[in-house]
Amino acid sequence: MAGAENLTASEAAKRIREGSLTSEALVTDCLLRIEAREPEVLAWQYLDPEQALAEARARDKAAAGGLLHGVPVGVKDIIDTADRPTGYGSRLYDEVRPPWDAACVTAMRRAGAVIMGKTVTSEFAGFHQGKSRNPHDTKRQTGFSSMGSAAAVADFHVPVAFGSQTGGSIIKPASHCGCVGYKPSYGTFSLRGINPLAQATDTLGHFARTMDDVILFSQAMLGNPDFAAGGALRPNKVGLCRTAEWDTASDSVKAAVEDAAARLGKAGISVIEFAFPAEFEKLNDALLDVLAYEAAANFAYEYEFRRDGLSDDMASLVEKGRGTSLETYHAALDLAERCRRMMPDLLSETEILLTPSAEFEAPLLEEPMGRSQFIRFWSLLHVPVLNLVGPVGSLGMPVGLQFAGGFRGDQDFLRRTAWIEAALAE
Amino acid sequence: MAGAENLTASEAAKRIREGSLTSEALVTDCLLRIEAREPEVLAWQYLDPEQALAEARARDKAAAGGLLHGVPVGVKDIIDTADRPTGYGSRLYDEVRPPWDAACVTAMRRAGAVIMGKTVTSEFAGFHQGKSRNPHDTKRQTGFSSMGSAAAVADFHVPVAFGSQTGGSIIKPASHCGCVGYKPSYGTFSLRGINPLAQATDTLGHFARTMDDVILFSQAMLGNPDFAAGGALRPNKVGLCRTAEWDTASDSVKAAVEDAAARLGKAGISVIEFAFPAEFEKLNDALLDVLAYEAAANFAYEYEFRRDGLSDDMASLVEKGRGTSLETYHAALDLAERCRRMMPDLLSETEILLTPSAEFEAPLLEEPMGRSQFIRFWSLLHVPVLNLVGPVGSLGMPVGLQFAGGFRGDQDFLRRTAWIEAALAE
Repeated sequence: MAGAENLTASEAAKRIREGSLTSEALVTDCLLRIEAREPEVLAWQYLDPEQALAEARARDKAAAGGLLHGVPVGVKDIIDTADRPTGYGSRLYDEVRPPWDAACVTAMRRAGAVIMGKTVTSEFAGFHQGKSRNPHDTKRQTGFSSMGSAAAVADFHVPVAFGSQTGGSIIKPASHCGCVGYKPSYGTFSLRGINPLAQATDTLGHFARTMDDVILFSQAMLGNPDFAAGGALRPNKVGLCRTAEWDTASDSVKAAVEDAAARLGKAGISVIEFAFPAEFEKLNDALLDVLAYEAAANFAYEYEFRRDGLSDDMASLVEKGRGTSLETYHAALDLAERCRRMMPDLLSETEILLTPSAEFEAPLLEEPMGRSQFIRFWSLLHVPVLNLVGPVGSLGMPVGLQFAGGFRGDQDFLRRTAWIEAALAE
Repeated sequence: MAGAENLTASEAAKRIREGSLTSEALVTDCLLRIEAREPEVLAWQYLDPEQALAEARARDKAAAGGLLHGVPVGVKDIIDTADRPTGYGSRLYDEVRPPWDAACVTAMRRAGAVIMGKTVTSEFAGFHQGKSRNPHDTKRQTGFSSMGSAAAVADFHVPVAFGSQTGGSIIKPASHCGCVGYKPSYGTFSLRGINPLAQATDTLGHFARTMDDVILFSQAMLGNPDFAAGGALRPNKVGLCRTAEWDTASDSVKAAVEDAAARLGKAGISVIEFAFPAEFEKLNDALLDVLAYEAAANFAYEYEFRRDGLSDDMASLVEKGRGTSLETYHAALDLAERCRRMMPDLLSETEILLTPSAEFEAPLLEEPMGRSQFIRFWSLLHVPVLNLVGPVGSLGMPVGLQFAGGFRGDQDFLRRTAWIEAALAE
C-alpha cells in the first residue's frame, strides 16, 4: 500500500494545493484500493468510478480554493444526493433520486471535495444490520449504523466520510473498525436532506484517520477555517469516566481505557476518577424510549403502507414506540434536560472525559451486536464525543477510546483530543 | 352557504360515523365551495377533485374507525405526499414526487381522513410572499407562510389543515384569515417528510375553526383519543402579556386584547398583568439570527447550484445567515435556553397568557407584511401558542388573540383555551 490512498485528507489537500498531486491521481489510487478490497469489505452502496473520476478531473481544472479541494469523501446513504441514488439502507427505496443534495453534501462541494459514492448504512440508520464487514477481519462486524463509512475510512478507501449518530452509530463503528469518529454537539451541522431516525438526538458527524482530518472536515462543513484552529490544546484535567456499566466491558476495553489514563498521567495530565450522579444511569434506557417513540412516528408510512419492505427489526422498533406513552416519552426528555443542565457544573473541573467506546471488540457476524451502553447516553446529553483508535485487543481487533466534552464546546474539545491523540501516540 | 362544507371536522366525523353523512357528500360540498372561491382566494397549490373524491368513496366503503374518518384535510405544500406533487413553494421543485408520505400525512390516513390537496406555502416556508389572498378581502394578505391552509380553513374549503411555524407561520395567517391556529410545543409532532426551514424552531401544527377541532386533530395526529380530552378547563389566572412591543400594535389589536381580558375578568377569571424579564426582549432578534444561520446551512444547495430558481428574499436570508457567526448563533440559542428555563417559574402563577397575535389586521397585498413581533419569540421559547378569532377590527378584518402556555403542557393548555373560546363567545 504505497499509493495516495494512504494520505490523510490534510496531506492530500496540501499536495493538491501545491501541485504535487492531482485529484485524479488521488481518486484513482483510492478506486484501486476499493477495487481490491470492496468484494470483502462491502463498504459501498453506490459507487460509479467514472463519475468520481469526472468530478476529480473537474477539480483539477479549477482553481484550488476550498479546504478539501480534490479530496474524495464518502457519503452515508441516508444522505440525499441529487446525482446518485439514495437508498436509506431500505429495500423500499433502491431507486430514489432526491431532487437535491443534502446541505452537508453541498458543504463538501463548496469545499472542493469529490463525492466518491454512497456508503452502506443499516436500514434507516436503525437496528437492522447492514452488509458491511470489518476490514480488519471480514468475519467480524463493523458496528452499526454508519458501517460503510467507518469501514471505508479505516480501510483507506477514502480519507474522510460522513456518519450520523442517534444512539451509537458513529462511535461504535469507529471503535470496531479502528478510525477516528466524531459526533459533534447536537445541532452543529445541518440535517436537511438526511432522513431522520429520531430528531431528539439525530446528529451528523464524520470519520477520519487523524484528528487533523476531523478538524479540517469540520472547518469545511462550516465553511470556516478558524473553527477549532490554533493547534493541539493541552487539557488541564482529564476525568476517567468508567460509568455504572464498567463491569460489562471486556478486559481488553478496560485495559485500554486504564492504560490510556495512565499514559496521560505520565504525560503530566491530572487524571481523576469522574462519576456521574445516579440519575444519569437512567439515560441509556431513556434514549431507547425517545428513539422508539420518535421512530414510530417517523416511520409510520413504511409501517402502515409498505410493511413488506420493512425489516422485522424496524417494525419491532415502530411497535415498541407505539407502546411508549406520551408520558414516558416526556419523562425521558425531561430527565435528559435535567442531566444536561448539570453537565456544565460536572465538567467545571475536568474539561474532558475518557470513557470506553464499544463494550467489546468487534463481534463475529453471527454474534449479538451489543448494547452500546457506553455510547447511547452521551447522545441524549447532546455533548460532543469522539473515538480515538486505542490498542489492539485480545481478539486482535481495534479497541476504541471515547472522549466527551461540554455541549457546544466542540472547538476546544477537538483541540484537546488532538493533544491527547499525539500524547497517546508517543 | 348551507352545505356540509359548513360543518366542523368534529360534527362531520360524528355524522359520518352515525351514517347521516357520507364522506363523498362532504367532500363534494367542499369541492363546490372551492370551485366557487378558489379563483379569488388561491389557497390551493395542487388539488385533483377526482382524486379527493376517490379517497372519500373509499372511506365510505370502509368501516368508520378513525377519529377523522371521511373528513377532508388540507396539507401545506412543504409536506411530502407520495401520490401528489410536492413543490415546497419553490419554482425549482414543481415536479417533485416524494417517495413517501410525510409522517403527519400517514397519521391522517390512519385516522381515516381524506387528503383534499396541497395548500399554498410561501417559498420553503420562508419570507417570500406566496399567491394566496385573504378570503375576507382578496385585496389583502393572508399572512405567511402557511397561507393556503389558513385561507382554506377560514373560507370553508376544508375544516382542518396542516400548518408549520418557524417564526410566525401559523399564528400570523390564522390571525389575518380569522381561524384557530395551533403551534404545539416544539417537538410534539414528527417532522419527517417536511422540508426544514430552521430546525431549532420548526414546528408542525394545524388550523381549524373551533377548539374542538384543534383537539380532535391533535388526537388524530397522536393516535390517542385521550389527548387533551375531558372537556374545557377553567383557568385560574390569566396573564395579560402586552410585551415590550405593545405600543407597536394597532388600536384595533390593543382594543381586542384588552376587551378579551375584560370579558375574562367579567367571567370571573383573575386577569393579571404579566411582564417578562428584560432579557426576553432580545428573543425576537435572536430568533432571526437562529433562523438565518440555520436556513443558510439548509438551503446551501439551492443557493449554490440553483440560484436562478431561488427568490431574492430567500437568497438574502442565506446571505444574512452566512454573515451570522457561530458565536452569534450560539449566543442566540443560549439566550433562548436561559429564557426557557425561567418559564416554569414565570408561569407558576398564571397558567396561560393572553397576548396580541399579529400587530395589525391583514395589510393590503402591496403593503409591507409586518414583523411578527408578537409571535416570533414564542417560537424560540418552544411553548405552545394558539390563535383564537377575536373581533372585527377597524379595517373590517379579523383580529386575532394569541394564547401561550407552558412547554409540553399542551393538554391542559388546549383545554383552557377551549374554555376561553366558549367564555369569549358569550
